[in-house]
Amino acid sequence: MAEETKTAEDAERKKEEFSEWYNEVIEKSGLTDKRYPVKGMNIWRPYGWGVMSRIDDLIREEMRRTRHQEVRFPLLIPDEEFEKEADHIKGFGDEVFWVTKAGDKELDIPLLLRPTSETAMYPVFDLWLRSHADLPLKIYQMVNVFRYETKQTRAFMRMREIYFFEAHTCHSTGEKAEEQIREDLRIMEKFAEELALPYLELKRTDWDKFPGADYTVGVDALMPTGRLLQIAGIHQYKSNFSEAFDITFEDEDGNHKNVHQTTYGMSERLVGAVVGVHGDDKGLVLPPAIAPEQVRIIPIVYGDEEKIMEYCEEIERELREDGYRVEIDERDERPGSKFYDSEMKGIPIRLDIGSDEVEDEVVTVVRRDTGEKEQVSVDELKGHIGKTFESMKEDMYRRAEEHLQSNIVDVESLDEITEEKVYRLGWCGKEDCGEEIEEITGRKLLGTRYGGEEFSGECVHCGDKTDKAAYLCNAH
Amino acid sequence: MAEETKTAEDAERKKEEFSEWYNEVIEKSGLTDKRYPVKGMNIWRPYGWGVMSRIDDLIREEMRRTRHQEVRFPLLIPDEEFEKEADHIKGFGDEVFWVTKAGDKELDIPLLLRPTSETAMYPVFDLWLRSHADLPLKIYQMVNVFRYETKQTRAFMRMREIYFFEAHTCHSTGEKAEEQIREDLRIMEKFAEELALPYLELKRTDWDKFPGADYTVGVDALMPTGRLLQIAGIHQYKSNFSEAFDITFEDEDGNHKNVHQTTYGMSERLVGAVVGVHGDDKGLVLPPAIAPEQVRIIPIVYGDEEKIMEYCEEIERELREDGYRVEIDERDERPGSKFYDSEMKGIPIRLDIGSDEVEDEVVTVVRRDTGEKEQVSVDELKGHIGKTFESMKEDMYRRAEEHLQSNIVDVESLDEITEEKVYRLGWCGKEDCGEEIEEITGRKLLGTRYGGEEFSGECVHCGDKTDKAAYLCNAH
Repeated sequence: MAEETKTAEDAERKKEEFSEWYNEVIEKSGLTDKRYPVKGMNIWRPYGWGVMSRIDDLIREEMRRTRHQEVRFPLLIPDEEFEKEADHIKGFGDEVFWVTKAGDKELDIPLLLRPTSETAMYPVFDLWLRSHADLPLKIYQMVNVFRYETKQTRAFMRMREIYFFEAHTCHSTGEKAEEQIREDLRIMEKFAEELALPYLELKRTDWDKFPGADYTVGVDALMPTGRLLQIAGIHQYKSNFSEAFDITFEDEDGNHKNVHQTTYGMSERLVGAVVGVHGDDKGLVLPPAIAPEQVRIIPIVYGDEEKIMEYCEEIERELREDGYRVEIDERDERPGSKFYDSEMKGIPIRLDIGSDEVEDEVVTVVRRDTGEKEQVSVDELKGHIGKTFESMKEDMYRRAEEHLQSNIVDVESLDEITEEKVYRLGWCGKEDCGEEIEEITGRKLLGTRYGGEEFSGECVHCGDKTDKAAYLCNAH
Repeated sequence: MAEETKTAEDAERKKEEFSEWYNEVIEKSGLTDKRYPVKGMNIWRPYGWGVMSRIDDLIREEMRRTRHQEVRFPLLIPDEEFEKEADHIKGFGDEVFWVTKAGDKELDIPLLLRPTSETAMYPVFDLWLRSHADLPLKIYQMVNVFRYETKQTRAFMRMREIYFFEAHTCHSTGEKAEEQIREDLRIMEKFAEELALPYLELKRTDWDKFPGADYTVGVDALMPTGRLLQIAGIHQYKSNFSEAFDITFEDEDGNHKNVHQTTYGMSERLVGAVVGVHGDDKGLVLPPAIAPEQVRIIPIVYGDEEKIMEYCEEIERELREDGYRVEIDERDERPGSKFYDSEMKGIPIRLDIGSDEVEDEVVTVVRRDTGEKEQVSVDELKGHIGKTFESMKEDMYRRAEEHLQSNIVDVESLDEITEEKVYRLGWCGKEDCGEEIEEITGRKLLGTRYGGEEFSGECVHCGDKTDKAAYLCNAH
């Protein structure tokens, strides 16, 4: 009961003072340093990079399982290639950084820093693809991309240098490309489970799709502010790019055809989402799968120091043998300050070990997400930690899912839209109506559920009958 | 005997037509694609990126062992920071790429693409360091750096976008910084063993050290051309940068002092060195530790296909259980074409499996570096592979070491310098003499052994008595 109250209060604080809370936590926990002297470009400190690298490991595992291959393309793109797909250049043109000089020489051809890599990759795709036997082509890379963001920047969420994951695929038919979109959504599902991040997958409106795409599925997580944060984008290109870049293959009958393409993008925003969704007023709360340090041992030394330290080291050794990421906090600090640090960093499990624990051959296990404490015998510790990690993941997911669901509000009139919530409303599907809904409410129409959903009602704006429910929300 | 003749011939071919051979092998094996439309910037294909990632894994392991922490700093550096250290800007100024525009707006402050990250990192180091308790600071990152190279570019060896490893350390005293240099050299030694890359570690001449360094140790591997390729640079900065960037700490007595700094850099050149040193006329020969695929199983299907495939899969499963990276070549191709591919890619061990092997419960094991074939019983296979990997590593190292040693030639007069060799000669140590030696021979004085070596003779140019032996060679 006390726990629930606490959680409710935290949520309140995070919501009320989100920006302040967020900025404080990401710096104090050691994720990032925002004092780099270029706007929108932060420093990944070891702990932050550790979290990002664990997320990368999870992505790589999914990529291996689904037979995507990792590549790395150059950062600089010649203007000429960038301009080939009309919508793409229209969408990104205003926000690219340009390299115009090298040494003291003006470059003949200006080069831009990739805002995304379609135009870096696609000129060679045609060279790689001869026949249907070379398809599907499924590749990905994890790189820095650059976008000259004019809105206010925010660490991990809205940056000018962005750490980015992008998968690009080519297929022989439209149906196979559609199957890829479904595979991407299954990857998203598995992956989000590990991050304990529930989400809505919304087919974006036509005016909000990725520049050059036929359609875009945006994957949105709900922040404590009641605003949605897009954490992934899955894009169906059909042959829009392959026509512009002349990417063809020879089919079984010897005909040359354009490939169908898809992409799947995610970024450091995943870190921002994890911080925002799970954190509390003590700091980060990291899902075990992505915690650089999963277990921290805190020796509480009043009595026989040597004996306590030996006991801690023995436990560290045993847990490491089982593959857990464990550290002992050996700094010369008071236990209270060590608890504070472990909580701020969101380390999933803390083991407090003092002379009582040594004597009784137990360990005091403290779970970061709930604060629950229990004594566990050394013999049962490994199994206990494994089980606790499993429940933490599930409980964190469930709590976040409850938060998401309880913030989705059905409305039948735009007048009802007054709070920071996710509003579900009838929409006739017409662009005019949609844009007017956005204008009137000052919010974004984030689209309709990708898989579709049962709905029957009237367009909240024009009153036409519709079976489409759209989601309206402020976006981070 | 036949093997030795073959090896000698290959070496001859690699040496005579090195450029052609090299360019052919790196593309045919799938390491890189050089058709990217910007000079000096290539595409890492999956196989090449796989090799690089394995190298990164080895580096990370060493970094963990020596308690360096991974970070990631922004790519773009403001002009103002870059200009702070006079020698550094002199050394790099001519070869930096400049970002001057974003969208259609000229930037107020031009930003450069990092050619290396001293000037990105050091402005915040002072913010991170308070007292001696924060030292040593040992961090590293693996990133893309950019240098506007004006000489002819070559894949992996001389690029304009370079995949780069850089470790940066801060210490309280000069002696501790010196100890770091020695640690770096021990890391280099362990690491080079896995890559089977022998090298010379040479303290560079003063006019050839890293811009801003007090001294530089260059780590050079011998290419088949008889030229040296620098594969690592270890730099003692003393307080040159910490004075320019005002990086101080409070010592035990409350005095503010500048830190002493070192760096350790390596790059994708390691891939170029591995290709050049170990390859032969059949293609790459990869040391087992960095082979993305360590074992390839080739089913030789004439008889009972199903039985052979089951046998192959069983072996694959068992080897994977032991942690080996194994693939079955299931493509519908002739065995000859499969052998060719496996050899071109330098896969350390090939397992040929036909109906004879299935019947006798054996496997035909083919070792890539020597071409040796032997039949091994399935029961002994795992142990056999482990042992073979160990001997491959050692044998590859030994052969390369013999090649290196046999190409070091002592000379007492510059007239003797006629071939592509590494010449060892007496040098008085004076800059004038050194530069004249370089001018007369058209080669580079790469410095003296870092650890020093016994020598007594005369300067090959001025005739003064000296105990310094210097190494002169063409450099890649």
